[in-house]
Amino acid sequence: MTEVFELQYALDTFYFLVCGALVMWMAAGFSMLEAGLVRGKNTTEILTKNIALYAIACVMYMVCGYAIMYPELGSTFLVGIGGNGVEGGDTYAPSADFFFQVVFVATAMSIVSGAVAERMKLWVFLAFAVAMTAFIYPMEGRWTWGGESVFGMYSLSMVDFAGSGIVHMAGAAAALAGVLLLGARKGKYGKNGEINAIPGANLPMATLGTFILWMGWFGFNGGSVLQTSTVDTANAVAVVFLNTNAAAAGGAIAAMVLARILFKKADLTMILNGALAGLVTITAGPDTPTPLLATLFGALGGIVVVFSILAFDKIKIDDPVGAISVHGVCGLLGLVLVPITNADATLMGQLGGAATIFVWVFGASLIVWAILKAAMGIRVTEEEEYDGVDVSECGLEAYPEFTKG
Amino acid sequence: MTEVFELQYALDTFYFLVCGALVMWMAAGFSMLEAGLVRGKNTTEILTKNIALYAIACVMYMVCGYAIMYPELGSTFLVGIGGNGVEGGDTYAPSADFFFQVVFVATAMSIVSGAVAERMKLWVFLAFAVAMTAFIYPMEGRWTWGGESVFGMYSLSMVDFAGSGIVHMAGAAAALAGVLLLGARKGKYGKNGEINAIPGANLPMATLGTFILWMGWFGFNGGSVLQTSTVDTANAVAVVFLNTNAAAAGGAIAAMVLARILFKKADLTMILNGALAGLVTITAGPDTPTPLLATLFGALGGIVVVFSILAFDKIKIDDPVGAISVHGVCGLLGLVLVPITNADATLMGQLGGAATIFVWVFGASLIVWAILKAAMGIRVTEEEEYDGVDVSECGLEAYPEFTKG
Amino acid sequence: MTEVFELQYALDTFYFLVCGALVMWMAAGFSMLEAGLVRGKNTTEILTKNIALYAIACVMYMVCGYAIMYPELGSTFLVGIGGNGVEGGDTYAPSADFFFQVVFVATAMSIVSGAVAERMKLWVFLAFAVAMTAFIYPMEGRWTWGGESVFGMYSLSMVDFAGSGIVHMAGAAAALAGVLLLGARKGKYGKNGEINAIPGANLPMATLGTFILWMGWFGFNGGSVLQTSTVDTANAVAVVFLNTNAAAAGGAIAAMVLARILFKKADLTMILNGALAGLVTITAGPDTPTPLLATLFGALGGIVVVFSILAFDKIKIDDPVGAISVHGVCGLLGLVLVPITNADATLMGQLGGAATIFVWVFGASLIVWAILKAAMGIRVTEEEEYDGVDVSECGLEAYPEFTKG
Repeated sequence: MTEVFELQYALDTFYFLVCGALVMWMAAGFSMLEAGLVRGKNTTEILTKNIALYAIACVMYMVCGYAIMYPELGSTFLVGIGGNGVEGGDTYAPSADFFFQVVFVATAMSIVSGAVAERMKLWVFLAFAVAMTAFIYPMEGRWTWGGESVFGMYSLSMVDFAGSGIVHMAGAAAALAGVLLLGARKGKYGKNGEINAIPGANLPMATLGTFILWMGWFGFNGGSVLQTSTVDTANAVAVVFLNTNAAAAGGAIAAMVLARILFKKADLTMILNGALAGLVTITAGPDTPTPLLATLFGALGGIVVVFSILAFDKIKIDDPVGAISVHGVCGLLGLVLVPITNADATLMGQLGGAATIFVWVFGASLIVWAILKAAMGIRVTEEEEYDGVDVSECGLEAYPEFTKG
Repeated sequence: MTEVFELQYALDTFYFLVCGALVMWMAAGFSMLEAGLVRGKNTTEILTKNIALYAIACVMYMVCGYAIMYPELGSTFLVGIGGNGVEGGDTYAPSADFFFQVVFVATAMSIVSGAVAERMKLWVFLAFAVAMTAFIYPMEGRWTWGGESVFGMYSLSMVDFAGSGIVHMAGAAAALAGVLLLGARKGKYGKNGEINAIPGANLPMATLGTFILWMGWFGFNGGSVLQTSTVDTANAVAVVFLNTNAAAAGGAIAAMVLARILFKKADLTMILNGALAGLVTITAGPDTPTPLLATLFGALGGIVVVFSILAFDKIKIDDPVGAISVHGVCGLLGLVLVPITNADATLMGQLGGAATIFVWVFGASLIVWAILKAAMGIRVTEEEEYDGVDVSECGLEAYPEFTKG
Repeated sequence: MTEVFELQYALDTFYFLVCGALVMWMAAGFSMLEAGLVRGKNTTEILTKNIALYAIACVMYMVCGYAIMYPELGSTFLVGIGGNGVEGGDTYAPSADFFFQVVFVATAMSIVSGAVAERMKLWVFLAFAVAMTAFIYPMEGRWTWGGESVFGMYSLSMVDFAGSGIVHMAGAAAALAGVLLLGARKGKYGKNGEINAIPGANLPMATLGTFILWMGWFGFNGGSVLQTSTVDTANAVAVVFLNTNAAAAGGAIAAMVLARILFKKADLTMILNGALAGLVTITAGPDTPTPLLATLFGALGGIVVVFSILAFDKIKIDDPVGAISVHGVCGLLGLVLVPITNADATLMGQLGGAATIFVWVFGASLIVWAILKAAMGIRVTEEEEYDGVDVSECGLEAYPEFTKG
């Protein structure tokens, strides 16, 4: 082992840890985004869900999720990972790999909390979080990043650089299953087909959440190069940072212009969702497009997300923060765009992978939600919903001095 | 190419990307600072301006700004920058350089949004953002960091390490031109010469914004060393981090003590502006002073900014967040302090550079603002201003449950 | 000096700076946490205290604190630290070391502000901050990380990796001394022994603060390995990141479940304090446990903090944000847990170190607080407390549009 190798190992490990810390920071981003977009009476509960789901993801992925997803790496995990990655032929510390992986699980789960906001029981949600982070996500991760075949039957050939499908669409699929069983918020859809806007209580918070996510995404995509210690990998990481930023910018602008055309207003929530849509869209392949193309891919995401949000409302699927559109629809979009710039991907391979992930996560989630619904009910009472879930679930108002009277 | 060179390249690239992500984070800082310092009825719009200007800056600088500012680097940019920086003799990835540069453009533009807050039309502002980030800023960047002569006539000898003048004073000059054409907010200045305080709606948000900027500034100044892979450059980066922090601390304390003396109160908004003033002041030369001197330079900035804010109010130039004082006056202060600790700088060189930047940016901006004013008007109607621009421009209240009634 | 050494020096310096920036970011975390947990009428003042104490810590530690704590390093500090760390045999820049150390001082002082919130005079608090950061903290730092004996009498053998005792318990000891002299907030404890809940005004802000602290803690603990440029140290840093995250997750879950059992509600403020308790608990030894054990240590912290908060209320020690429980009680817990996984530590050594720190910091603080009380009074008037300290101390309301009427 030469000194140069030691430095390479050290740099790659540090790079992984910095990127992992940025992805952890995305948990704060989801929390603030969702807290800003719900009503004041449901804010404490959404904050509670977000911090609790992050904690649950960290524990469950450690206890069994990592071992399911990466059978070789995970099997010896619980007995200690102080060991040296050198023996395994890696250029980074095993703990750094786990740290980077575990924050991805939390991201997938964070997507769910927004979609089911303002009406789902807290403890039911947390029980689902256990199932999702311990088993449902690790299984599809095993078939993709883990490199194993799907139930020993077939292997996926999808290219999904940092997880447009594996993380984002998967989270959205779980959310969709929950929303279908849960139903819309009272008052969202009128008897005569009206769609009533339910404005979020704190838009600076939602904007902050979007900026946090934007920043954290540099770690999410940038870290997914998995190495940075050579000229080639360093160039790749730099391209990924740049394209990630460009796609978010494209998405924000496209959604803003489209909202201006459709609604005559610069609808801030659409701009925020446009930026996030751009980020989700580029995530499947931030390494291959030119910056201009990355901007255009992001812009396409920004356009798709606006129409998607409108469409889901048309069919009365109530998603308070637009999470299914941002992460699900744009996650799929990101997957199908990859073959345009990456010769390793085919449209059929991408669709096959997307279908497998969706069927598995949606199906497994539906079963878990259905069991929870049968066992204990998944929705708060009408009275609790009317009064807000903060008091009934958490015993604390988020803004006791602001929203009174 | 030796392995050691590969590692050097990798480390410098990663350092650039981390610093760039911190500067991107400053966009969130400006958003929160400005959102906290305006009234609730104008908050959605200032958030919209901030996220949109960042996105516009990223796109316009990619499309043409970078090529204007760095003719050699930028000319081949749009056809792809996946290429290897090694051939160009750099120790970092070309994409990393672009990423670091592009977030600086957004910073310059962010300065404008605060000064014109609460009364300028949203789409006019965004049109100006296009002109500023595509042309006005890149031109003066070309004459300074780009190393080209000013319209082929003369060359600047100013020393401006990370952009007290090139970024901050430039942003403030553009803002000043806009404010002069725009006029003060209704009710700010009374008929008998009274100056009416218009308090910001959310001081925790403004404080958060300041902390974000403080943190992001480590990337802004620290990344401007441009390399960190040798003992000398690593020492320089460390000195820059330390002095940046020291100057902010000095600015905060000096402004607090001065506010206590002048107003008998620890005026939080002055403390926040004092910290930012310290940061702007040190930005022209964070590499040469001792930490103690950096603290004193920052403190001088903190004192100057308080008097500057009072003076601008005296002459009825209405700047809701104090941006012209913080970034313009202290940007100039920073430039003229450089020769004290840096033998490469002369007072005449600094003043010559400052004058060139100011004349160009102020003049070009005035023309653009004037064209926009003639073409479509730059100010919202009196009724829209009275009701707040959030509803008329964005169709959304920032705090629908808090400010009602 | 080989090129490899240069790179090692550069990487270790950059690692220190990134970690230091994350610890600086904790200042924002404390600010938001405390601002969210106090009432709206005392919010501007707590923000002012937080940003001012950070600035004061930076200045005082530079002026004399660093020289007291590290006599050899600090003696030449004020005359300039641009010098090269190579001559001293270090693998990182001297300025980077100072930067990393100075943000720790601020952390210790941040702990105090929460405990004395809503009733202490601003300028008295700042005067104490001067004493704490210039002298009280540096003295106990000298006996521990500085490696000097306690007043030349005996040497400590405590193992405290990143400062459960040296930073967190020390801050809590200073806070406790202040709270004892200050007394409880009016209305907190009723005449018949009732304990009245005084809810915080802005729980999203408090949650954001917790996430910021969680993120910043990666720098706090991760940077305390002090080197990352070898395989062994890189592995150690990775383990520390992972265990820090695991302990916070364990603390959050344990506190949530316990709160559910005790109060039938998922009390968000207890969950936040549980996460922080987990972080404080692991800080004394994040390098030696397995991730599972780190989770359990964190969970133990989460349980202890809930009972501790209830116990302090029982004995009428009023700590509005639970800082003494989180940082003091769990800081001690962290110290006594170290011997379980680290053979270099003994229970007696840990208790001896904890006792020395507590006696010194509590005693010295009590004297300083007592002098301040005698000289100028440390508590605002009853009328100021009733009206809120924001207007009397800072002249600005934090939320002028939200809390009126």
